[in-house]
Amino acid sequence: MEEKKFELKPAERVDDLQISGLGIIQESGRFCFGMDAVLLSGFARIRKGERVIDLGTGTGILPLLLYAKTEAEHFIGLEIQPESADMARRSVAGNNLTDKIDIVTGDIKEASSIFGKKQFNVVTSNPPYMVEMTGIKNPQEPKAIARHEILCNFDDIAREAKALLVQGGRFYLVHRPVRLPELFVTLKKYGLEPKRMRLIYPYADREPNMVLIEAIEGARPMLKIEKPLIVYDRNGNYSEEMVEEYKY
Amino acid sequence: MEEKKFELKPAERVDDLQISGLGIIQESGRFCFGMDAVLLSGFARIRKGERVIDLGTGTGILPLLLYAKTEAEHFIGLEIQPESADMARRSVAGNNLTDKIDIVTGDIKEASSIFGKKQFNVVTSNPPYMVEMTGIKNPQEPKAIARHEILCNFDDIAREAKALLVQGGRFYLVHRPVRLPELFVTLKKYGLEPKRMRLIYPYADREPNMVLIEAIEGARPMLKIEKPLIVYDRNGNYSEEMVEEYKY
Repeated sequence: MEEKKFELKPAERVDDLQISGLGIIQESGRFCFGMDAVLLSGFARIRKGERVIDLGTGTGILPLLLYAKTEAEHFIGLEIQPESADMARRSVAGNNLTDKIDIVTGDIKEASSIFGKKQFNVVTSNPPYMVEMTGIKNPQEPKAIARHEILCNFDDIAREAKALLVQGGRFYLVHRPVRLPELFVTLKKYGLEPKRMRLIYPYADREPNMVLIEAIEGARPMLKIEKPLIVYDRNGNYSEEMVEEYKY
Repeated sequence: MEEKKFELKPAERVDDLQISGLGIIQESGRFCFGMDAVLLSGFARIRKGERVIDLGTGTGILPLLLYAKTEAEHFIGLEIQPESADMARRSVAGNNLTDKIDIVTGDIKEASSIFGKKQFNVVTSNPPYMVEMTGIKNPQEPKAIARHEILCNFDDIAREAKALLVQGGRFYLVHRPVRLPELFVTLKKYGLEPKRMRLIYPYADREPNMVLIEAIEGARPMLKIEKPLIVYDRNGNYSEEMVEEYKY
């Protein structure tokens, strides 16, 4: 096994991703990756040799997990916050993956200008979930930018996903169920047809708190809703699927 | 208890609705009501004194069940097929409900011309699920009209629902999950905001086969997806909720 050396700054740590020996640099004060990204990495279907871009990659969790789980040719992670992008870049280097994953510091709203149109088979995104509100105390705070639609909204992301994808390309995203009608309207507006969806229910008798969506450029309308993913069983332990598929 | 007399034609029978002593006239050769209508009648929230119209009422199952389950002031059932409307009318008469339920023979596409605008607090519909296809052998056949969008499509139904509803009125419908993106787009196009939704899964580990939706005229976007409704338990028996709530 190759030696791995992660260049760490103060307050940073390396977390074990529990797959292919990968690690990721995180910092507890900043936005850390959650179950959302892990579930999205299992939902996305990526084929051998494909080119993938992750919009708003944060510290690079999706490209790292998707590298481990697929045979894609190459990944780009686009991130607007320089400090997060820098952490992602050092994680990629520490895992010796600089030939497979490029981390680019830049704005999602300009993604198709930066990378050109129709350049990717797959777009992924774990975007800010919450509509921007005047109530945000410090909109420049990194966690606020990761969680609220301060620097871009879902329309921007769908528009750029459409522009970046080849014909018939796939867009995988995770979001909040409360916004499902708006997500569908926006995806269809850009010709990204929702084809597959899965709801994540924390418990079998509770409301879902996440939704995974696959939209395909130019596809015929017909949505397949998959069986529910239940996170915890009735005893509060991780369910069989969470343990077997996601190693929780 | 009042005496009930149902006027029956050949091949017709009276089925017990298992609630409030109600019966419904059905004929095995025609479209008979299904679990869809029963689940929709439990999902709809109708308040005391409200006026309700059911678009495409068939043999009147929804007005009958909603009469038993709510304290609405009055129901109208609109049905384009004269034979179904006639059966519905005789069921209403047989249950001694002619002062509470009116069955009107007419076209959903003209509903707001027939009844006027902003006349109802609630619209319900268990519409044809399937997109019209050239493959239908006999598009005049009653079952085909009940199942396929031959005489009206979902856009017609949403447009008329919007016109019929008072400000803030509610539209309750049951449909197929495969059409969810289109349903949301069409509802929002007419200012009917999807606010509450429930998926019906035949088994806990299968895909859902029905979706219940509440849309509110002029409401703010924010969808609440409820806990899944599982029809059968792992032994193939009706689940607790189906037995306790729906008497299956």
